[in-house]
Parts: sequence; C-alpha cells; structure tokens
Amino acid sequence: MSRPIITLTTDFGIEDHFVGVMKGVILSIAPDAQIVDITHQIRAFDIAEAAFVISEAYRRFPKKTVHVAVVDPGVGSTRRPILAQGGGFTFIAPDNGVLSLVLERETCTVRHITAEKYFLKPVSKTFHGRDVFAPVAAHVAGGAPASRMGATIADALRSNLMQVYRVGKRTWAGRILKIDRFGNLITNLASEEFAPLLDRPFEICVGLERVARRVASYEEAEFGVPVVIAGSAGLLEIVFRQDSAAKRLGCGAGAPVELTVF
Amino acid sequence: MSRPIITLTTDFGIEDHFVGVMKGVILSIAPDAQIVDITHQIRAFDIAEAAFVISEAYRRFPKKTVHVAVVDPGVGSTRRPILAQGGGFTFIAPDNGVLSLVLERETCTVRHITAEKYFLKPVSKTFHGRDVFAPVAAHVAGGAPASRMGATIADALRSNLMQVYRVGKRTWAGRILKIDRFGNLITNLASEEFAPLLDRPFEICVGLERVARRVASYEEAEFGVPVVIAGSAGLLEIVFRQDSAAKRLGCGAGAPVELTVF
Amino acid sequence: MSRPIITLTTDFGIEDHFVGVMKGVILSIAPDAQIVDITHQIRAFDIAEAAFVISEAYRRFPKKTVHVAVVDPGVGSTRRPILAQGGGFTFIAPDNGVLSLVLERETCTVRHITAEKYFLKPVSKTFHGRDVFAPVAAHVAGGAPASRMGATIADALRSNLMQVYRVGKRTWAGRILKIDRFGNLITNLASEEFAPLLDRPFEICVGLERVARRVASYEEAEFGVPVVIAGSAGLLEIVFRQDSAAKRLGCGAGAPVELTVF
Repeated sequence: MSRPIITLTTDFGIEDHFVGVMKGVILSIAPDAQIVDITHQIRAFDIAEAAFVISEAYRRFPKKTVHVAVVDPGVGSTRRPILAQGGGFTFIAPDNGVLSLVLERETCTVRHITAEKYFLKPVSKTFHGRDVFAPVAAHVAGGAPASRMGATIADALRSNLMQVYRVGKRTWAGRILKIDRFGNLITNLASEEFAPLLDRPFEICVGLERVARRVASYEEAEFGVPVVIAGSAGLLEIVFRQDSAAKRLGCGAGAPVELTVF
Repeated sequence: MSRPIITLTTDFGIEDHFVGVMKGVILSIAPDAQIVDITHQIRAFDIAEAAFVISEAYRRFPKKTVHVAVVDPGVGSTRRPILAQGGGFTFIAPDNGVLSLVLERETCTVRHITAEKYFLKPVSKTFHGRDVFAPVAAHVAGGAPASRMGATIADALRSNLMQVYRVGKRTWAGRILKIDRFGNLITNLASEEFAPLLDRPFEICVGLERVARRVASYEEAEFGVPVVIAGSAGLLEIVFRQDSAAKRLGCGAGAPVELTVF
Repeated sequence: MSRPIITLTTDFGIEDHFVGVMKGVILSIAPDAQIVDITHQIRAFDIAEAAFVISEAYRRFPKKTVHVAVVDPGVGSTRRPILAQGGGFTFIAPDNGVLSLVLERETCTVRHITAEKYFLKPVSKTFHGRDVFAPVAAHVAGGAPASRMGATIADALRSNLMQVYRVGKRTWAGRILKIDRFGNLITNLASEEFAPLLDRPFEICVGLERVARRVASYEEAEFGVPVVIAGSAGLLEIVFRQDSAAKRLGCGAGAPVELTVF
C-alpha cells in the first residue's frame, strides 16, 4: 500500500520554523505520510496567487492526495477552516477564496471544519497551519472520514479570478493571474478558447505595450520582443525570450489584459 | 515500523549542492530515512537564529527524530561536534551554542562526537555537514547507539538568548530573537510570564517606537499601528497587520526590547 | 527493498507550481519514489551552474539513483532529451551541456529519449520538465529499462567548463565555476593538481585583486583578506572569512582566474 500524500502550499516562506513545524505535526499523527511542498513562497497574504498555484498543481498528483493551502490573513478571526472533496482529492484551507479555482473546476462537497478533537490544543490565534490545518490533513490522510470533520456548507467563498469579460465585439478583458519565476505573465485567458483567435491579426494590451506576435515555443521568439504563447497551464502567457516580461512591461499579478482581434 | 526521521536546519541556502549532498550521504547510509527540511535559510553564521528555529521546531516531531543543526562558522577548527539526547530526541550539531535553547528546555546527555569510523573520509576542513554531521545522524537514525559516538561532556556551550533582565521595579529588558517571514518581531519575553502583565497599561520600547496596544489575533489589529500579540511560539511578538514590523520599526534580530508596566 | 530515489536540479525556482507539478507526475507513476531536491535555484538558463551542481551532488547518492537536471532554455525546440547511464547512476536532462561534467567524470551510455509512450500527452512546447523528464525518470526509477527510452548516441553536447589552460611557464588560466551561498568563489582548478603548487609563493588574479595567501580552514583566515582554500568539492576556492568574496572582488560565475607560481 502506498503512503498517503499531503501537499503544502503556503505563504510561510522557508526562512522560519513554520513549515518544519507543520511537517512535524503531520508526521506525529501520520508517520507514513509523504509530504510534498508545492510552494511556501506565495506572496504574503496573496490569496489569488495561491488559488492559481494550487489549481495548477493538484491534478498532477495521484488520487486521494490531500492538498493543504494556507494563505490566511484572517487567521484567528471568524473565517472558517474548510475541507473540500472533489475530483478524487481532498483540499484543506481557510475559507477565503484560496480554493476558488479548484471549486470552479471540480464538483466538490465542502465542509466547515469544526471537529476540535482533531485540532492541536490550545488552538493559537496566529498559527492555524500548525493547530488546525496540519493535524486535520494528517488525520484525513491517515484514514479519518472527511464527514467527521464538520457539516457540509454551500457558501464557500469564491473569487472571480478566472472571469474574462467581453467588452467589445472583438475585445475581451482579463487579467494577469501570476508572474512566474522567469517573469512570464500568465493570463486568465484560456488557450483552448482564445488561442484559435490568434490565427488572425490581434493585439494584446498589457502594461504600456501591445503584443501582436504569437509563437509556439520560447525558442521561436526573437530576443527583445514580447510574444504570446499557449503556456503549459492551458492559459495564454506573455513572455520575452530569456527575459522577464514582468520587468519589461512593468506588470504585476492582477494587472488588466485586453485582447482585440481584427 | 515507521521510517526514521532526520530533520535539517542549516545556513547552507538552497542555491547550492550542499543540502543535496547531505541528503545523498544520509540516504546512502540510511536508505529508509525520511529527511525533513526545517530551513536552510538561517542567516549565514547566525547561531542565535538557528538556536531559536530548532528549539521551536523539534518538539513537534515524533519521538526518536534526529535533529541536525549546522550553522558552523568554526568548521575545520577545534570546535567540537556534539550529540545531545533529551526529551526523546537526538540533536547533532557543532558545539557553538546552536543547541542553547534545546539544552535549556530539555535535560540532555551531551556527547563529544569523536567516533571517526562513522565519518566520511577524508574529513574536509570546510564541510562537516557532509563529512561528520550527516553520516553520524544517519547512523544514529539507523540504530547505532549514541554512546558509540563519543564520551559525555558537561561543558557544552550555551548562550543567554532567553535571558530577560529586570532593570526596574516594573521594567524588563529582553531582545528580539527572530524576524519572521512576515516581518513580525519575535521577542524572548515568554507569553506565559509577561502576557498577564499586559492587562494593565504598558509600553514596549523597540526601535524608535513605543508599542502600547495588545491584540489577540492579527485581524484585531488596526492597519499601521504596532501591536503586541502572544505568538504561536509562546513568546510575545510585535506585529503590524499585513505589514513588516521589522521594516516599520527598523529592527533586526538581536535588537533590545524593554517592557514597562504602569 | 528500498524506495527508488529521484533527485531534481532545475532553474524553476520555488515560487511557482512547476516543481510541485513535476513531483505530482512522478508520484502518479512511481508512488514509492523518494524525491530529493538538489536545488531549483539555478540561475535562470545557467547551464554551467547546473552542470557544476549536479556533478558535485550525484556521487553522494546511493547507486541506482535517477538524477534529473532541467535547465532548458531550448525547451520546445529541436534540442534532444537525453538519458545517460554511468557510475551506477541514471541521468535525465536536455542535451544542452548540463551533463557535461558528469560525462567527463563517468563513462556513460547516452541515449536520445524518443519513446513517446512514456511522455505525458499532449507534450507542451514549454514544460518538458512535466511532460518528458519527470515521467521518463519515474518510469526508469520504477524499473523500465533505459534501453526502451531510445537509441544510443555518441554526440551529446559537452562544454569545456573544466578546461584549465597553461598560458605561461608557471601560469594557468581557469574560471569561476560557481558562487556559493556564502559568496565563496569556486574555481575550476582541481585541488589535487594545483594545491601542491601553493606551497611556493603564488598569486591568483581574480577580479581586481591578487590572492596570495592560503589557509586550510575558514577559521585560519584573517577577516578582510582574500585567501585560497582547498574546498569540499575538490576545487580551489577564493574566500573571505565570514564575508562574500563575490561582493568583495566584484566577481561572478564565469569570471577568469589566473594562477601564477613564483
């Protein structure tokens, strides 16, 4: 029998004891758990970035994997901890929108986690990663039924990160979801829907620049010219060859993007 | 039977081959070891920071876990490698104070590691993480008795990181132990002892600022006003809501903190 | 039976979903794999740095370990994915020189990976880490014979990173291979060959400085004076005690180094 897998996506960084502590808590409850870091470098409090990262990573894992996402500016307040099950996976997170994209993609049963007997006590006001999310994840990975964690709810918070608005006959407005390590701008424009439109002349306005060229791979791009590419996440990306589009275009996550087809 | 757990806390960073090499050495000796990174981002040579991080993380792991801490400016000199056992855990580190807080908290048997037959040979002058600490940890995790590693000693180095001085009738002087990822200032003032005093009017002088407000969770804090909070490590912390107290107050680890109760 | 080990060396960083995705793919194919990060912080597109790191780390792992190195500016173009076996290890990487130092050290059988049935489909143009390298590594680690991955080739790309030129009777010219986390400059001058020469008066020109002193351990160095040391990688290193030689000498990876013996 394979070991249960638990993944972690947080904004805790890797300089502190936080992540190690969560792993210690998990292994104390589920000694056979295989813990996989997705990332701990989500920008502090950036729920949208975490929502994107977890939505991109979760499907690649074996079924039954427990995915924990803790970006939690409201820790210690009344925001609920939730557990969602769908697509064969379990997700554990604060109810603040961090699971928005997962909930959009998978039909999920969502529960408000209230079963304090699975928490580490006393529950602190500042570190639910340790006291709530890690132990609940470990218990679920170890076999505790999700139904024991709390009652189902229908009103989990969702954001509209993936919303693309048609703002003209041939114009769509979206946003930059994420700047990746290479400075590539990942938009929320789905390649499946929008890439076919790029066979015609087009322009994408982003930052101070207009992007009007499309390539299939990074190596096809000229140096110094922004291009659009159908990225590995199934989304259009704005990239410079071996350079940072974020720096060249002065754009950050959340910036608007407008596609016009002529 | 569960796999033996070895944790790593170092200042080796994650850009180089150092950490991977240590893991390779460990897995060559103890193929079933479960290696957990606490952090490799201790500020280079910052023994105090490592002492805090390891002291905060170790207790959360299952008993029998072997904790390795390598922040080692004196590598290759005469400083001793040591092995400490207490609280059900084994600690392996250079004898330079990095285990100070552990030794304060747990009654430990400390040994000077001298059993060269467990070392990787030739032992380099610059990388005892690879040549001494990793292989000894792997052998101990794999079942080699600690007593074989060397004779007990009574004079392991300890620093006074946790010392709080009473400098007036109602005034105590401590220090900032650690800046965490969010810029929160973790002091060495134990919540258990000092939080009750904060029910009365108080001020904490730190950097250029006086902190006179206390909250229970981050969300209770106003934006832009420094507050004190009983943090998850059992210590008072100075924080700004969703902002870096370190930057706002111009404070680093080691800075003095003074609490006065009126 | 021990779990198969797969190591990862990439320039993907740790902020994004890329590394988590690769791990998910691996664990979906080889659920028992033990995945070890060497580093994901190779400078973007820096093939030479990756070549050094992987060459330094691989030998420390148990035989049969599968080492994956993905620094891949040519992803999606015609550069070949390759699989090399030698020294008891398997290496999987793009054919762009990233395995140069491994191929120099070990007699390897190198194959052009063409067995698309082991790829994740559709194969993207931008993320072969996910679609080619991770699944092939997982299949090989899980027992698929390397011979099934493709035909052998004799022309894998190699760079001359380790080349030291004799440019005078008593003068040798090499280069900085790598700046490590502490700012130490790791040269490509092998200690075995060049350290004995340092018993005589010598100077090493690097950046704007001449280094003429040699020490055995960091603690023997004076503060503020650059020294040469036989480093843990078997190479000469230029270091400052508890300071960054890279910053002090204004040097980066690739910078020339000249040793003269008097």
